[in-house]
Amino acid sequence: MSPRGTSEELRVAVIGTGRMGADHVRRIQEVTSGARVSAVVDLDAERAKTIASRVDGCTAHTDPAAAMAAADVDAVLVASPGPAHEATLLTAFEHGLPVLCEKPLTPDAASALRVLEAECELGRRLVQVGFMRRYDAEYVRLKSLLETGQLGRPLLLHNRHRNVASPPGFTSDMLISDSVAHETDVTRWLLGHEIAAVTVLRPTPSASAPDALQDPQFVVFETDGGAVSDVEIFVNCGFGYQVQAEVVCERGTARIGDGHAMVTHMAGRWGGTIDQDYTVRFADAYDREIQAWVDATRRGEVTGPSVWDGYAAAAVCEAGVRALTDGGRVEIDLVEKPPLYR
Amino acid sequence: MSPRGTSEELRVAVIGTGRMGADHVRRIQEVTSGARVSAVVDLDAERAKTIASRVDGCTAHTDPAAAMAAADVDAVLVASPGPAHEATLLTAFEHGLPVLCEKPLTPDAASALRVLEAECELGRRLVQVGFMRRYDAEYVRLKSLLETGQLGRPLLLHNRHRNVASPPGFTSDMLISDSVAHETDVTRWLLGHEIAAVTVLRPTPSASAPDALQDPQFVVFETDGGAVSDVEIFVNCGFGYQVQAEVVCERGTARIGDGHAMVTHMAGRWGGTIDQDYTVRFADAYDREIQAWVDATRRGEVTGPSVWDGYAAAAVCEAGVRALTDGGRVEIDLVEKPPLYR
Amino acid sequence: MSPRGTSEELRVAVIGTGRMGADHVRRIQEVTSGARVSAVVDLDAERAKTIASRVDGCTAHTDPAAAMAAADVDAVLVASPGPAHEATLLTAFEHGLPVLCEKPLTPDAASALRVLEAECELGRRLVQVGFMRRYDAEYVRLKSLLETGQLGRPLLLHNRHRNVASPPGFTSDMLISDSVAHETDVTRWLLGHEIAAVTVLRPTPSASAPDALQDPQFVVFETDGGAVSDVEIFVNCGFGYQVQAEVVCERGTARIGDGHAMVTHMAGRWGGTIDQDYTVRFADAYDREIQAWVDATRRGEVTGPSVWDGYAAAAVCEAGVRALTDGGRVEIDLVEKPPLYR
Amino acid sequence: MSPRGTSEELRVAVIGTGRMGADHVRRIQEVTSGARVSAVVDLDAERAKTIASRVDGCTAHTDPAAAMAAADVDAVLVASPGPAHEATLLTAFEHGLPVLCEKPLTPDAASALRVLEAECELGRRLVQVGFMRRYDAEYVRLKSLLETGQLGRPLLLHNRHRNVASPPGFTSDMLISDSVAHETDVTRWLLGHEIAAVTVLRPTPSASAPDALQDPQFVVFETDGGAVSDVEIFVNCGFGYQVQAEVVCERGTARIGDGHAMVTHMAGRWGGTIDQDYTVRFADAYDREIQAWVDATRRGEVTGPSVWDGYAAAAVCEAGVRALTDGGRVEIDLVEKPPLYR
Repeated sequence: MSPRGTSEELRVAVIGTGRMGADHVRRIQEVTSGARVSAVVDLDAERAKTIASRVDGCTAHTDPAAAMAAADVDAVLVASPGPAHEATLLTAFEHGLPVLCEKPLTPDAASALRVLEAECELGRRLVQVGFMRRYDAEYVRLKSLLETGQLGRPLLLHNRHRNVASPPGFTSDMLISDSVAHETDVTRWLLGHEIAAVTVLRPTPSASAPDALQDPQFVVFETDGGAVSDVEIFVNCGFGYQVQAEVVCERGTARIGDGHAMVTHMAGRWGGTIDQDYTVRFADAYDREIQAWVDATRRGEVTGPSVWDGYAAAAVCEAGVRALTDGGRVEIDLVEKPPLYR
Repeated sequence: MSPRGTSEELRVAVIGTGRMGADHVRRIQEVTSGARVSAVVDLDAERAKTIASRVDGCTAHTDPAAAMAAADVDAVLVASPGPAHEATLLTAFEHGLPVLCEKPLTPDAASALRVLEAECELGRRLVQVGFMRRYDAEYVRLKSLLETGQLGRPLLLHNRHRNVASPPGFTSDMLISDSVAHETDVTRWLLGHEIAAVTVLRPTPSASAPDALQDPQFVVFETDGGAVSDVEIFVNCGFGYQVQAEVVCERGTARIGDGHAMVTHMAGRWGGTIDQDYTVRFADAYDREIQAWVDATRRGEVTGPSVWDGYAAAAVCEAGVRALTDGGRVEIDLVEKPPLYR
Repeated sequence: MSPRGTSEELRVAVIGTGRMGADHVRRIQEVTSGARVSAVVDLDAERAKTIASRVDGCTAHTDPAAAMAAADVDAVLVASPGPAHEATLLTAFEHGLPVLCEKPLTPDAASALRVLEAECELGRRLVQVGFMRRYDAEYVRLKSLLETGQLGRPLLLHNRHRNVASPPGFTSDMLISDSVAHETDVTRWLLGHEIAAVTVLRPTPSASAPDALQDPQFVVFETDGGAVSDVEIFVNCGFGYQVQAEVVCERGTARIGDGHAMVTHMAGRWGGTIDQDYTVRFADAYDREIQAWVDATRRGEVTGPSVWDGYAAAAVCEAGVRALTDGGRVEIDLVEKPPLYR
Repeated sequence: MSPRGTSEELRVAVIGTGRMGADHVRRIQEVTSGARVSAVVDLDAERAKTIASRVDGCTAHTDPAAAMAAADVDAVLVASPGPAHEATLLTAFEHGLPVLCEKPLTPDAASALRVLEAECELGRRLVQVGFMRRYDAEYVRLKSLLETGQLGRPLLLHNRHRNVASPPGFTSDMLISDSVAHETDVTRWLLGHEIAAVTVLRPTPSASAPDALQDPQFVVFETDGGAVSDVEIFVNCGFGYQVQAEVVCERGTARIGDGHAMVTHMAGRWGGTIDQDYTVRFADAYDREIQAWVDATRRGEVTGPSVWDGYAAAAVCEAGVRALTDGGRVEIDLVEKPPLYR
């Protein structure tokens, strides 16, 4: 990283200032310790200017390359649409800039593989991929418990992923590539296995699903470590945002995501509220993710989910979409894992 | 009991056929194994006849003494109003008939003491008092856990007792003498202590309480074993029927009454339903209570809550009503415990 | 049934007095109201005699047909091993005796179909199959909730079925045909669909599983109503006996089987105990099942799971075993549903 | 505050660098955005120097007054022992410095009143008192729910406050003045009432309590708004650190503190872990408290718990200690609330 030493703030260029990018600008300014936003980039020049104007000493750009060439940029946060990621990442590599890249790394396995090869050629990791569940307190606790070995080896992983309603334009493929993308990483990270095959079951869609949307879906992963991980993905469940995971091990199970923070009793019912949105459920995870990236970057390190993780997720999602479309079980072939990621 | 041996059915006279008594008739006929109703008694002759007509070989009476003198009566279940209990119990003693007496044993400590003295004179127990929580699966589990000693000695007991709404005519005193009466027995039975003093706090009544009803109340018992047992009694809580108990011991706590049998997620909330009535929450306890009494009686034994328990509850409730009315802390003096109940 | 009217007790012949049969003898004698055991049958004459000797007026037999021919038998409870069921059922049909037949109806689809055809020829139902989960309070509550329509149409059903350890001789096929057999019925009954296809996934077995036992397995059912029902079956989980079900509907989900009756806090943990055995978890369901059968039989009716349900379960289990052995997805073809069961 | 505007960092003098103070130094440096530690003060000069040496541009002092006179100090965080607070606060008032003062404000009502009078004379608030539960996510959610009015008016508040073990030198009085001090503020803040009377019950101490320590205690508060708030304080419960609160309102109840983040099933039990320490349970609350103070101070405002809250807590604790010592019910008389705090 910057040769200016750890006591100075990390100056971050945020590329893409849509919902996610704008939220990250706010986060870096107000929540994250040791960093500030020195540049924002958006194709929409007005939008970039408006956001930049709220931050002291922040410049606005429409071209990611221009921002990355600026003297006061130590690191890059990529929050632009997926198809733009590859070019931005390759430019960042040229400048030797550390990157936090929102998921997906890129939209397909072939492009992800090109990024991976470029980083390998560079010979050092620059990219952390934005799989923020690895920073969620409950997932971290679950992972820690697995690592103690108390429960024995994991055999099965049951995932639930429910959204209140899908945004306009959400397609059946996107339930896999956009939503289940998280569970591909959760499965790989929690179990420490690669995913070897995927099957997608298509129950009759809910009446609440928009026309022609295959929602819910039931996805079954088989891992190279002999585990089975199933995912209920239901993006028009209507009642709330829920992310749950239960690992079944040789000597016990552990489940997260029930969210029992406050229990009320009224009107003939006991219970609690369900978050309506990932920005609420995972607010702390996003904070911790950015903070961890800033801290590592200031130490001159790259930690967290790697380009390999981004590539593997892309390959699994691609296979998943094929399984959804064609039916049946689709096997996944990854390239050999480069030494950089071992 | 009857000299006819255990293979024959126990013939029961049910005295009082109001809500509770009628339900017990149904229970003995349809649920209880080894017993049948041979006589019913009610001041309302029509009512007695109607109920008797539904049961093969059952006679109807208006006078308890007449029913107890009948040849085909082996045991008596008393479900008449509390003020009538003393006379009925003394008559049952004359006939040597085993009795299951709904709580309260009698409405005040003085009359309960007379029943106790009569039974002591008889020299053997005939009466089981209807404190049915001792037969509830959750309370039994709690008691069993305490008896293992795993948690150490009990120090505190927190009770919650909530009803949807109070029936017409329910007075502030009755929150103690009718409702908290259950917690007097629970406290004594779970802890194995006598209650030595009682204080009643009077928060501003709920707007949902009928005029002039002091509801909720917060009752604090001090026991002769050095424990403190508190009771929230709230008979117009509006949202459900809830009975909870948490025992705090030297090495841990145990809580019952959360009732998590089915969990739903819908409309932004997770949770479950709350029973609306004791007949639902304690249906199994009533079944088990009657069955236990029938089984013991057929074996020629008397088990379960004794006249001493009924007397102690009456004495505590009397003191509780005084504490409610006068404010402050009221001490309870019981007579010495007769050998029959040790 | 017997022409003697509802006021007399139902006289039951219990065929098979192993663990299950002996327990049913006890249940009918001590728990069930309105019935008694008049005959027991076991190939082991000593065993039959011992059990008969404990029950007033009960005779011992080694031949089911002899017992069913006796004058004092009104109904038959079949608890012998599955391969013996077909012959016993056909004999019962000859005598016109109502039967409660423990699951499985018969061990395979072909024999189940012969029983079904025989009952259809008879023109009236005589058999209730022992799928006792339909009588469990939690499943009943779940079914009732689904029937209200509050949650909308069911889309997915997630089942967990865990045993502490498998008995000696338990094979990989038996995880399907013996254990998942329950979930075939639960799926069909809760959803009101037939099962159209089955896939079985085989994770690396647990180190706690006996040699060569494929445990756990992950079973995926597709129904003719367009729902997907998944089953985790894990018969050597080590930690307890757990049966859970979560139905995911268009507007919400409902889950049973968490068993939160008593919560303790001690030694750094909060939580509760897990039942170790189905005889504990489903004790009440067995009681209710037998009582419901006795009550219906005394009314001259046959209710509960039918021969059709037993046949469908046999067909699904057969297909499941094939899916387990051969891999892949196996479709299930049922014969047309006879009018008797519509 | 400093005239240098919101874009610059708040320079904080931390007074007292024991466990709490040292943790706050770390928090401001690593977690809090917009602040840094510019001075530390400790009677132990070595300790002050060691801690200062870890922070860029931080000076070490033994005299609070000297630190507060320094040019690079914008605000003061007081974490010294309670008896030193009064002098430090009065000096801060002289310099017009905003203060975050750890609880207790001062050790008794008389000294708290002197601080209150001094701040009133100043005519503006400078002090935020360290009642950090007001910043805990669960308490905040509970408070928000009460403010919606959905549950109606609060009638009762049940509090549980349990520690694994008491530190050496912890006295019976300190269960009130050190531990229940939190619940005095929780009661006042959640209900918006002042506490009018207090009673302390003394069950037989736990065998795990050190000699002569009255542990547990059961404290009952009566508020001027007609509510009753009870507190179980048990500082040698052995099994974990637990803080729970249940508000009982006219139309329902709400409970926090059950902490169900991860549920495991193993070895015959389901459940989760219990935090062992307040630094774990309330880590986020401390973070949010300091951040809120920094943010408000940079805006030139003082928010959060006031000197009035500190004074009221001191008065209630004083009365509570009297109730513990003398028995009976002790009334609390507060001075009239000055306009500054209305």
